Amino acid sequence: MIHIVGHTAIDHISRVAHLPEKNCSTHIADRQIYFGGGAANIAAGIAMLGGQVTLVSCTGDDFAGSEYERWMKKLGIGQQFFVVPGTHTPTAFMFTDEGGDQMTFFEWGASKAFAHSDAPFLPFVHMATADPDFNCRVAERSGFASFDPGQDVFYYSKEQLETIIANIDVLFANQHEVRQMCDTLGITREALIRQVDTAIFTMSSDGSTLYTKGREHFVPVVPVKCADPTGAGDAYRAGFLSAYVRGYTPVTCCKIGTVTASFVVEHVGCQTHLPDWNAMTERYRQHFGTLDAPRDKGD
Amino acid sequence: MIHIVGHTAIDHISRVAHLPEKNCSTHIADRQIYFGGGAANIAAGIAMLGGQVTLVSCTGDDFAGSEYERWMKKLGIGQQFFVVPGTHTPTAFMFTDEGGDQMTFFEWGASKAFAHSDAPFLPFVHMATADPDFNCRVAERSGFASFDPGQDVFYYSKEQLETIIANIDVLFANQHEVRQMCDTLGITREALIRQVDTAIFTMSSDGSTLYTKGREHFVPVVPVKCADPTGAGDAYRAGFLSAYVRGYTPVTCCKIGTVTASFVVEHVGCQTHLPDWNAMTERYRQHFGTLDAPRDKGD
Repeated sequence: MIHIVGHTAIDHISRVAHLPEKNCSTHIADRQIYFGGGAANIAAGIAMLGGQVTLVSCTGDDFAGSEYERWMKKLGIGQQFFVVPGTHTPTAFMFTDEGGDQMTFFEWGASKAFAHSDAPFLPFVHMATADPDFNCRVAERSGFASFDPGQDVFYYSKEQLETIIANIDVLFANQHEVRQMCDTLGITREALIRQVDTAIFTMSSDGSTLYTKGREHFVPVVPVKCADPTGAGDAYRAGFLSAYVRGYTPVTCCKIGTVTASFVVEHVGCQTHLPDWNAMTERYRQHFGTLDAPRDKGD
Repeated sequence: MIHIVGHTAIDHISRVAHLPEKNCSTHIADRQIYFGGGAANIAAGIAMLGGQVTLVSCTGDDFAGSEYERWMKKLGIGQQFFVVPGTHTPTAFMFTDEGGDQMTFFEWGASKAFAHSDAPFLPFVHMATADPDFNCRVAERSGFASFDPGQDVFYYSKEQLETIIANIDVLFANQHEVRQMCDTLGITREALIRQVDTAIFTMSSDGSTLYTKGREHFVPVVPVKCADPTGAGDAYRAGFLSAYVRGYTPVTCCKIGTVTASFVVEHVGCQTHLPDWNAMTERYRQHFGTLDAPRDKGD
């Protein structure tokens, strides 16, 4: 069982003719509601790939009976939720104008409860963007742990990042997050890589690099028509972790992550076009060759 | 039966620390969802005052079974809805920062259907903010008609405003709307007043003025602690129209409108603190003296 800690969120993605100035209004041409939240995206990705997964999230009054809950149940995602009365499930409002400029308003809502919640012991956990302090406590108590700082990278103090780095097995980050972590920690990129067993740095459409056991492996992206890059990182992690618990080598796990992400970017929304294991395997074969049987676990 | 034509809308009112610049994000400290839409606010006000009212609105997939629908049914508001599959009920997202600056994003959603809908014949109708062309067609076919241009005053062409002015009995407008109508029509404020039987111009906390039969009557506001001025104009119209169909004189109708509005501004939200007829009458008595029996209708 993989546990994923972090946000379950509802994304309202709107197109507007122009973004408003202060004390002005604008008309929304189109608004779509998508299921999101980094942790929930990863859990959905793992579930679609056939993995056993439980989501550790904070939800509000609006979750029970919602379409999002029905979707999670359909996927078979376990729920270890802090349900916080009088709050909303975290909600993001994203507005994009015709020139591609954006404004985002994010409501933590129920996720504020992370700060005061007891961290469970979790044997195999990924910590996605959430309350830094809660993630520290989870990291300290966990068995295997992986981590990505996500959009909340700015909220981590030096001490919090040090605690997490000292307690994780795998670090995922994009180029922006790597820079911010190095700034906060006051160390170089090379030093950051040395401090974790395995580091995976993603570079959008330029592929990803795996750093493990003193070696470096570059993994190119699978070229697809990108409709929306949002959720690519979460899908990558879902693919990696699903493959990891099945016993694949870290390089193969990265390739499976890359293939999984290639599906998600083809459609708008983070959970709208997740592949199952067969679809992933088929596209893997086309780009990286036949997917070998996994090693025995623990190799 | 009073018919009210215009928006039924859902208002998301959020507090943020700061409004975002382009390509930035901000955190929502608090988000509350209120029932709104100018027409629905007026209908709710009339229903709470004991009047018979039917709302002519456009709604989307999200309305049936919603809390808003349950609230309208509880109030006994008749629904003459254009239900538009694949759309949302009109929704407004308002963000206010600590300095009081605001940004508003408004989704017309289902209300786009007004443009292509047949206008019903309505014997006693108020037209609130909605599609200008639909309101013109309603005005031309109506019996008694009143009108307020609301936030969509900018969308009316000269010809549309002329059609409406020629077909209404009562015009409601605030100072901003009066200026904009005069600009669009290319006439003076005095000429605008002369073109309608009855004009009521509201001036926020400075009261309102009734212009009818060549005379002018000033009505002061009822002084209360104002928590949120939103919805005051709609409550005023609800009070006026409720009193008008009961046969009160226009001056008394304005006073009843003012008293009704004084309740609404005491609480955040447009439909959260509407008075019933007794509560309105009691506050009326305190400020304007005993509410006399109405004239016989048609006096």
